[in-house]
Amino acid sequence: MIKQEETATKETVTAFFMDLQDRICQSLEEADGSASFREDTWQRPGGGGGRSRILTDGAVIEKGGVGFSAVHGEATEATLRALNLTDRNRPGDPATAPPTFYATGVSIVLHPHNPGMPIIHMNVRYFEMSTGHYWFGGGIDLTPHYVVDEDARWFHQSLKTVCDRHNPTYYTTFKPWADDYFYIPHRQETRGVGGIFFDYLKPTETIKKDDLFAFVQDVGNAFAPIYTHFMHQNRDLPVEESEKNWQLLRRGRYVEFNLVWDRGTKFGLETNGRTESILMSMPPQANWIYDFQPLPGSREEQTLGLLKKGVAWV
Amino acid sequence: MIKQEETATKETVTAFFMDLQDRICQSLEEADGSASFREDTWQRPGGGGGRSRILTDGAVIEKGGVGFSAVHGEATEATLRALNLTDRNRPGDPATAPPTFYATGVSIVLHPHNPGMPIIHMNVRYFEMSTGHYWFGGGIDLTPHYVVDEDARWFHQSLKTVCDRHNPTYYTTFKPWADDYFYIPHRQETRGVGGIFFDYLKPTETIKKDDLFAFVQDVGNAFAPIYTHFMHQNRDLPVEESEKNWQLLRRGRYVEFNLVWDRGTKFGLETNGRTESILMSMPPQANWIYDFQPLPGSREEQTLGLLKKGVAWV
Repeated sequence: MIKQEETATKETVTAFFMDLQDRICQSLEEADGSASFREDTWQRPGGGGGRSRILTDGAVIEKGGVGFSAVHGEATEATLRALNLTDRNRPGDPATAPPTFYATGVSIVLHPHNPGMPIIHMNVRYFEMSTGHYWFGGGIDLTPHYVVDEDARWFHQSLKTVCDRHNPTYYTTFKPWADDYFYIPHRQETRGVGGIFFDYLKPTETIKKDDLFAFVQDVGNAFAPIYTHFMHQNRDLPVEESEKNWQLLRRGRYVEFNLVWDRGTKFGLETNGRTESILMSMPPQANWIYDFQPLPGSREEQTLGLLKKGVAWV
Repeated sequence: MIKQEETATKETVTAFFMDLQDRICQSLEEADGSASFREDTWQRPGGGGGRSRILTDGAVIEKGGVGFSAVHGEATEATLRALNLTDRNRPGDPATAPPTFYATGVSIVLHPHNPGMPIIHMNVRYFEMSTGHYWFGGGIDLTPHYVVDEDARWFHQSLKTVCDRHNPTYYTTFKPWADDYFYIPHRQETRGVGGIFFDYLKPTETIKKDDLFAFVQDVGNAFAPIYTHFMHQNRDLPVEESEKNWQLLRRGRYVEFNLVWDRGTKFGLETNGRTESILMSMPPQANWIYDFQPLPGSREEQTLGLLKKGVAWV
């Protein structure tokens, strides 16, 4: 059997991510109908840079960011620690010069106006070390302000379909991983209805690098159809003031997760990443009410009851 | 010389803090004129508990919390780590059972309606270990939405007066400590105009435990006169919409500091503290605008220019 030549290189992966950002922004602009993305390009002092695209006050999206970055440089202790590469996992000889890394990815968070629309997050990324180690990571998770059974099922089925095209173990592995990752311990709540999360995806005897790349491409390509589905379906849902207030409290939880627990955010802020690009994920407005308790039997209470790990949506 | 009998015990310190909470709440209610504190008492599963008092929608204060707590229990690894007591600093024999601790204090954060009024924070606390180690800690810092030279000077002079009554080195030591502590690295900004911060305050050859307690009492007692001064002076300042918007952005920074960098908040959330009491400090509303840049020469820009370490306010 002729060894298949692998085509996933840092160049091809990077090119795919740049194009993905372009295509997603175009789809979101079309579905929104009124706003267009503002682009900021930035350089990283240590090497590389990115393109942050921000949409504000659209017809559907109140504030959203779609970021692309491709950064490289010396893998400092902080970098290695954040990647769980210290001690036994650290590649190379610790006595020699630290390895260099290359990291590229696309990150998205969208906050809609309508509380009947979910917040969505997506990230796909690729890491490569000068030592030869490389891996893919990523995930998509949905944060409805009100959990709607049918929407959550449709979302998870969409992700499962993507996963199943590549490996029958992916959805069953990456769904609980998302439950664990997008969890707010101090609230004992999941951030939303979860989705999929994966990291350190490396080739095996039977799975080639190109297979992993194909999966990550499929995940990235699934984002726009999934969210524009909700944009078309939920954009004009009637809104009551109590629902708007609840949305603002749920955005407070989103802030709490991102600033206290999200590893990517913490890593970025602690290692002098570009703050405005990292905090693109912040909502336009978030509220806090001391010890808010939803009314018994309300939709708010029902939603809280579903923000837990292990719900089988498909 | 007859050895002076020390009167600062965990019982007398605790009693002082409970009474301090009462007196501060009463002063704030009187100065606010329209709202009263709601009290929640709570028990800590591991030992002890607290009284959280929350004021909402007052005439002057939009959302504020004044918390008292007195907790005790086994000093877990997480506790010791948070107190910098691992390794060389850890008291007792690591091979034996962990020591127990007793911790009591008062914590306050107040968010006013008027953007011309500053946010204020105060904390006074006492720690005691079963190994015999004990120390005091605390601080007060002011976060004006707009830095007003005269107000910042008056605030710092008030704190310096308190410090100088006890030790000529206190203000010169604790003022820069506050600059360092209330700093937002990812914004390269201080949270506000600082104030004083101190920790691990222990007796020395010349400073007795009672002297430290007297200082902490003075700091606690200074809080109400300081903030009610601003409540009376600034409550009716005229407010423009642009000032309200700026206030909401500055509250976003307050959220960022508390959730990303504040050691007390992080420690509480990571060690299963009472979440609603820890997050009493969250503002009622906070906003984020991507890459907001104040107009050149504006009061907002002037404020940003003063949010740095090392400003000599007195």
